[in-house]
Amino acid sequence: LKIGIINITGYAGAELARILSRHPEAQITTITGRSEAGKKLGQVFPHLSHLDMTIAPELGDSVDVVFSALPQVASAEAIVPLVRAGIPVVDISADFRLKSAEEYQQWYQTPHPAPDLLENSTYGLTELYRSNIKHSRLIANPGCYPTGAILALAPVIKEGLIEPDIVIDAKSGVSGAGRGLSLTTHFSEVNENVFAYAVEGHRHLPEITQELARLNVDFRPSPLFQPHLIPMTRGILTSCYATFVSGVFKDPKMAAKQVRDLYETFYNKERFVKVVSIPPQTKQTWGNNHCLIYPMVEPRTGRLVIISALDNLVKGAAGQAIQNMNLMLGLPDHLGLEGVAIYP
Amino acid sequence: LKIGIINITGYAGAELARILSRHPEAQITTITGRSEAGKKLGQVFPHLSHLDMTIAPELGDSVDVVFSALPQVASAEAIVPLVRAGIPVVDISADFRLKSAEEYQQWYQTPHPAPDLLENSTYGLTELYRSNIKHSRLIANPGCYPTGAILALAPVIKEGLIEPDIVIDAKSGVSGAGRGLSLTTHFSEVNENVFAYAVEGHRHLPEITQELARLNVDFRPSPLFQPHLIPMTRGILTSCYATFVSGVFKDPKMAAKQVRDLYETFYNKERFVKVVSIPPQTKQTWGNNHCLIYPMVEPRTGRLVIISALDNLVKGAAGQAIQNMNLMLGLPDHLGLEGVAIYP
Amino acid sequence: LKIGIINITGYAGAELARILSRHPEAQITTITGRSEAGKKLGQVFPHLSHLDMTIAPELGDSVDVVFSALPQVASAEAIVPLVRAGIPVVDISADFRLKSAEEYQQWYQTPHPAPDLLENSTYGLTELYRSNIKHSRLIANPGCYPTGAILALAPVIKEGLIEPDIVIDAKSGVSGAGRGLSLTTHFSEVNENVFAYAVEGHRHLPEITQELARLNVDFRPSPLFQPHLIPMTRGILTSCYATFVSGVFKDPKMAAKQVRDLYETFYNKERFVKVVSIPPQTKQTWGNNHCLIYPMVEPRTGRLVIISALDNLVKGAAGQAIQNMNLMLGLPDHLGLEGVAIYP
Amino acid sequence: LKIGIINITGYAGAELARILSRHPEAQITTITGRSEAGKKLGQVFPHLSHLDMTIAPELGDSVDVVFSALPQVASAEAIVPLVRAGIPVVDISADFRLKSAEEYQQWYQTPHPAPDLLENSTYGLTELYRSNIKHSRLIANPGCYPTGAILALAPVIKEGLIEPDIVIDAKSGVSGAGRGLSLTTHFSEVNENVFAYAVEGHRHLPEITQELARLNVDFRPSPLFQPHLIPMTRGILTSCYATFVSGVFKDPKMAAKQVRDLYETFYNKERFVKVVSIPPQTKQTWGNNHCLIYPMVEPRTGRLVIISALDNLVKGAAGQAIQNMNLMLGLPDHLGLEGVAIYP
Repeated sequence: LKIGIINITGYAGAELARILSRHPEAQITTITGRSEAGKKLGQVFPHLSHLDMTIAPELGDSVDVVFSALPQVASAEAIVPLVRAGIPVVDISADFRLKSAEEYQQWYQTPHPAPDLLENSTYGLTELYRSNIKHSRLIANPGCYPTGAILALAPVIKEGLIEPDIVIDAKSGVSGAGRGLSLTTHFSEVNENVFAYAVEGHRHLPEITQELARLNVDFRPSPLFQPHLIPMTRGILTSCYATFVSGVFKDPKMAAKQVRDLYETFYNKERFVKVVSIPPQTKQTWGNNHCLIYPMVEPRTGRLVIISALDNLVKGAAGQAIQNMNLMLGLPDHLGLEGVAIYP
Repeated sequence: LKIGIINITGYAGAELARILSRHPEAQITTITGRSEAGKKLGQVFPHLSHLDMTIAPELGDSVDVVFSALPQVASAEAIVPLVRAGIPVVDISADFRLKSAEEYQQWYQTPHPAPDLLENSTYGLTELYRSNIKHSRLIANPGCYPTGAILALAPVIKEGLIEPDIVIDAKSGVSGAGRGLSLTTHFSEVNENVFAYAVEGHRHLPEITQELARLNVDFRPSPLFQPHLIPMTRGILTSCYATFVSGVFKDPKMAAKQVRDLYETFYNKERFVKVVSIPPQTKQTWGNNHCLIYPMVEPRTGRLVIISALDNLVKGAAGQAIQNMNLMLGLPDHLGLEGVAIYP
Repeated sequence: LKIGIINITGYAGAELARILSRHPEAQITTITGRSEAGKKLGQVFPHLSHLDMTIAPELGDSVDVVFSALPQVASAEAIVPLVRAGIPVVDISADFRLKSAEEYQQWYQTPHPAPDLLENSTYGLTELYRSNIKHSRLIANPGCYPTGAILALAPVIKEGLIEPDIVIDAKSGVSGAGRGLSLTTHFSEVNENVFAYAVEGHRHLPEITQELARLNVDFRPSPLFQPHLIPMTRGILTSCYATFVSGVFKDPKMAAKQVRDLYETFYNKERFVKVVSIPPQTKQTWGNNHCLIYPMVEPRTGRLVIISALDNLVKGAAGQAIQNMNLMLGLPDHLGLEGVAIYP
Repeated sequence: LKIGIINITGYAGAELARILSRHPEAQITTITGRSEAGKKLGQVFPHLSHLDMTIAPELGDSVDVVFSALPQVASAEAIVPLVRAGIPVVDISADFRLKSAEEYQQWYQTPHPAPDLLENSTYGLTELYRSNIKHSRLIANPGCYPTGAILALAPVIKEGLIEPDIVIDAKSGVSGAGRGLSLTTHFSEVNENVFAYAVEGHRHLPEITQELARLNVDFRPSPLFQPHLIPMTRGILTSCYATFVSGVFKDPKMAAKQVRDLYETFYNKERFVKVVSIPPQTKQTWGNNHCLIYPMVEPRTGRLVIISALDNLVKGAAGQAIQNMNLMLGLPDHLGLEGVAIYP
C-alpha cells in the first residue's frame, strides 16, 4: 500500500509517520509539508530519519490512500480533488466532522469549503461506525476530545439510561494544541500550571453534541464540555458526570453492577477500548491506540461517573486514522497498531 | 508573638515556617518534628536554614499560639492539652473539621479523639467565618479542596440560586499528598500522567457537604466531588458545575451579569479572594494566599460553571492558618501574607 | 524612590515588578512595554494586578532610577539618553557587559550602540564589585549563566589555585530563554527532554571569560562553557570542573578542607551567597536571591568540582538588579530581597 | 524461545516485558516478583495486562533464557544456579560488571556472591563486545550511565587521541533510580529541580573506568564522573569533556573533521548507535534502543566535547539486555527492538 501524508510537519503528521513506518502492509511513499518542503524529514524530526524521505511541496502520483494532517479549510481544499478522483482519504482535520455546513460556518467562521461532500464523509469513530467506515472513501477522523467523551458515554446513551444534561470535564496534555507556537503552549507558561480554556465554547462541542445525538433518536444531548490544559505532553483524561433517568434501575443497589456489565458487553470484542476496573491513568495509554474506560455509580449520590483515558496523538488522532485506513482497505483494524504503552 | 509549630517536617509545616519567618509580629520559638527531633531545621529544609533552629521532641513552654501540622488523630492528641490550657491553636489536620463525631469515625475509621471539643472549634474558612474565628481558641483549618470548592460555591448557595446536585471536579498538584512516600507520589509514576483518585469518596467530601449545608438552611447539598492528580507540585484548580433553580432569573439573558455582580459584591472587600474576569490559572497563585474565582453561565446550556484556583499549601493550608492566627490574635488578617505569586 | 521599568512585559521585567512591589523604599511609577502599551499591567500579568498600573509607550518624567529589561541594542538605545541625563540605570541586557566594542560586535553581529559609555559602566556582580557599584550610574547587570559560574569560580581564581582549562557545564530552566516564542521553548518539545545548545559558543562565554580574567592578572582563563536546557521553569545549576595548579597544596589530603575554608571565608559576610555543605538544589533558591555554592575536591582524581545553584530570574536577573539599585542609591543591598525560597 | 524474567516488578523488568511482548521469536513464559507473587501482572502494571500472566514466587522450569532485574547481590544469588545449569542469563544488576571482586566489595560493601563466575561473564556493551557476547552464557548488562559514557568515548580512546583526565557530566531522568520509594524520587522534591548527587563517587564510576581502560592498553583513564538528577522520567544526556593528546592532529583545523570521520566510521554499521550532526535530545530516543552521539571540537579551546543521549530503560537497561539475548541465541541483534522513538 502506497501512503501519502499531507502536512507531515505537525504532531499528528509525525505520529502517522512513526506508526506507519512499522505497519506491515503500508509504505509511506510521498509526504508534504508547507513550510518545510525540500528538507529531509530527518531534519525536521530526527526520530524519523530512518524513513530517509524528502518533504515534497505536493503529493506524488499513484498513492493508494492519503492522510491529511492539515488544519481545517486548508485540509478540505487539499483533499477534495483526491476524493473526487476516488482516492481513499482520512482527514484528520475538522472539515468533514460536522454534518451541517451552517454549524461549520458558525464555529469555524468561514463557509464550508466543500458542502456537497459532507454527505459522503463518514465519522471515523472506529468502534461505533466500523461497517460504514469499511465502505467509505472519505473519513472524518474524530477530534481528540470527542473520541474520549463519546466512547465513554455511548453505552449509556444507546440504552437511554441518562438525562441530557451531561458534564464533560476534560484534562489534556499540551501536544493537543499542536506544534504551532503560542503563549499558552510556551513551556514557562504551562509548566506548574493548570487552567480551563475555551470557556465560551470549544470547537469540539458541536462534534460531541452531534455524535451523542446520533446514538439514540430519543436523546437530545445538552452536554457542558469544559477542557483544561495540564502540564504534560500527551494524554487526555475525560471525566463525564451524568444523572440516570429516573426508574431505569429497578433496584438502585444493582445499578453499579448493571452499568459495568453494560460497558463490558458493549466493548467486549474491542481490542483498543478497554473497560477497566480501577480508574485509568493516561500514562497507561502513552504512545498506543487504547482508550481505557472506567464507569462507576457514585455511591452517595447515585449519579454516573465515567472516566476515560487515551493518548491524544494516537487514539485521539493518528492511531485512529490508521485504524480507519485499515478498515477502508479491508485489513484487520489493529494492523500496525499493537504497540504497548510506554510506562513509566 | 511566640509561635510554636508542631510537626514542622511536612510540607504544611515547612510552609508555615517560610511565611512566618517574614511575619512582622510573629517569632517562631519552638518547633517539633517526630522523626527528625534533634536535627537542625536547615538539615531537613535547607531553604529554612536562616531560621537557625533545632527541631525539638516536644513544644517548649510559653508560646502564644500553636500550629499543628500533624496528621489527624495524632494532631488532636497533641493539641487537646494545649486547648484545655487556653492556648490558641490552629489545627491544620482534619480532626476538628467535621462537627459530627460519628461522621468522623465513619471517614477516618477511628473514634474521634476529643469529641467534647468539637463544639468549641471553629471552621477556619476565613472569609466566611471571620467573626467566629476572632473569638475562637481552636481553629479547624479547612482542607485544601474544601477551601477552593466552598469559596467558589458560597455566593450562589447563600442566595439559594442552585440545585443541590453539584459536580465538583478538582485537579491538584502532588504536594497536597504530603511529604510521605507512596507509589502515587513517586516522580516516575506521576509525571506525564493524570488520573482520578479516591473514586469511592474522598475525605474532603463530608467537609464540603457539611460546610455547603451551613451556608443556607434551606439547602441540602448533594455534591459529587471528584479529585484528580496532575503532574505539578502546587496548586488546585476546582471546576464546579451546577444547575440554577428554575425561575431564579427573570430574564435568563441577564443571568451571567447577575451572577458576576453577585460574586463581585460578595467578595468585594476581600484581599485574598479575587473574582477574576478571565479563567484563573493556578500559577497566578503560586506561593501566595490568593483564591481566584471565575463564575460564568455557560451560554448554550444556561448552567453555572465556577472555576477557582489556589495554592494548596498557602490558601489551602499554611497561609489560611496564618490568616486565622492573625484574626484570633487581633491582627489584620493579611499580616505577613502579602507575598506576590511567583510567575512564571 | 520613583522607579521606572523599561519593557516590563518580559520575564525579567515582570520579576522586577514582583520584587519591587514589596520593596520598602521603592515605588514603581512608570512602566513601558513595546507591544502592550495602553494595556493594564494586570491584563498582561494577572499576578501583578495589585499594582494597578498601565503600560506606557514611553517612560514618564522624574524617575529616580531606571531598569531596562529590553533586549540588547534596543536597551542601549533606550538608556543612553537617561545615562547622559544623569539618571541611574540598571541595564539587564547584555549591552554594557563586554568591555570591548569589538568583541560585542563579534558576538552580537552589530556595532556597539554606545561604545563611549562602555568605560562608564560597571559590571554588576554585586558580591565582587560592591564598591564600584556604589559609585556607578550605569550598571551592566550580569547574565544568568555568568552569575552562577563566576561566583562559583572566583575564590580559587583570585587565589591562583587552578589551571585555565576550566569546564563549565550548566543546566538551565526554560524561563532563561525569555517569553518570546520559539520551538525550543514550546512545551511539548522541552518537556521530558534535555539537550545541549549553543555548542558553537554561547553569548555568555565572552562575558565569563572577561570576568574570570579580571579576577587575577596572572590568569588567562580558557573556559569551555556548555549550557543545557532542562524541563523546568526556573533555576540554573552550574557544575564547574578544574585542575589545581601543581603544588598549590603542600598536603593533598588537606586540599578539600583548605578549599572549603577558602570559600567560607570568601563569602563569609554575604547574605545571598551561601557556601553549603551538601550539593545544592535549584529548588532551594526558587524565587529568591540566593546563590548556593558547593566546592569539593573529587576524592579519586584530586580535581576541583564546584556546583552552584540560583534562580535565573532573581539572582540571575531581576534580584541582582535590585541589589545593585540598592547599592547605587545608598541602601543596604538586601532591602526588599529577603523572600524565602518556595519549597517544594 | 521461552523467556523467564526474574523480578518483573521494577522498571527494568516491566520494560523487558513491554519489549519482549512484541518480539517475534520470544515468548515470556515465567515471571517472578518478590513482593507481588500471586498477583496478575496487569494488576501491578496495567499497561502489561495484555500478557495475561501471573507473577510467580519462583521461575518455572524449562526456560531458554533468563533475565534478572533484581538488585545486586540478590541477583547473583538467583542466577548462579541457572548459570551453573547452563541456562543463558542476562543480568541487569551490577553483580558481574566489575571484574575485580575486591573492587565490587569496596563499592557495594559486601563480598561478591560468586567471584568464580566473574571470569565467565561478559560485559554486554553490545556494539563493543558483539563477538564475545555471542559465545557467552552470562551477560553483565551495562549500567545506564556507563552505556552512554563508554559509547561516547570509545572511538577516541581506542585511537589514543585523548588525555586521561576526562570529565563526564551526566543528566538523568528519575526512572533510573527505580521504582523503590525515596525522598529524592518523591515528585514534589524532584519536580522543578536539578541537583548533583553521589558527589563522593557513584557506583557506575568503577565500571566506566574499568571499561575505558579495556579499550586501549596504553590508556589509564582518570574520569571524573558527576551525575545529576533532572525532572523528567526517562533519558540520560551525557556530556564528556576531554583534552586531545598533544600533536595528534597535524593540522588543528582539521581536528573537527577528523574526529567526526572517526566516529562515523567507528559506528558506521551500527543500527542503534547513531552519530548525529546536531546535538542530540533525549526525547529523540524516548522508548527506543538508540544511543545518539555528537562529537565536536570546541572551536575556541580546541578541546573535545562528546554528547550522547539514550533512554536509560531501553539502551541503558532492558533494550540492550534484549539485544544481548538476541546475540547469545544467534538472532540478529535488532530483533524486536525496532520501535521508533515517541516524539514529542
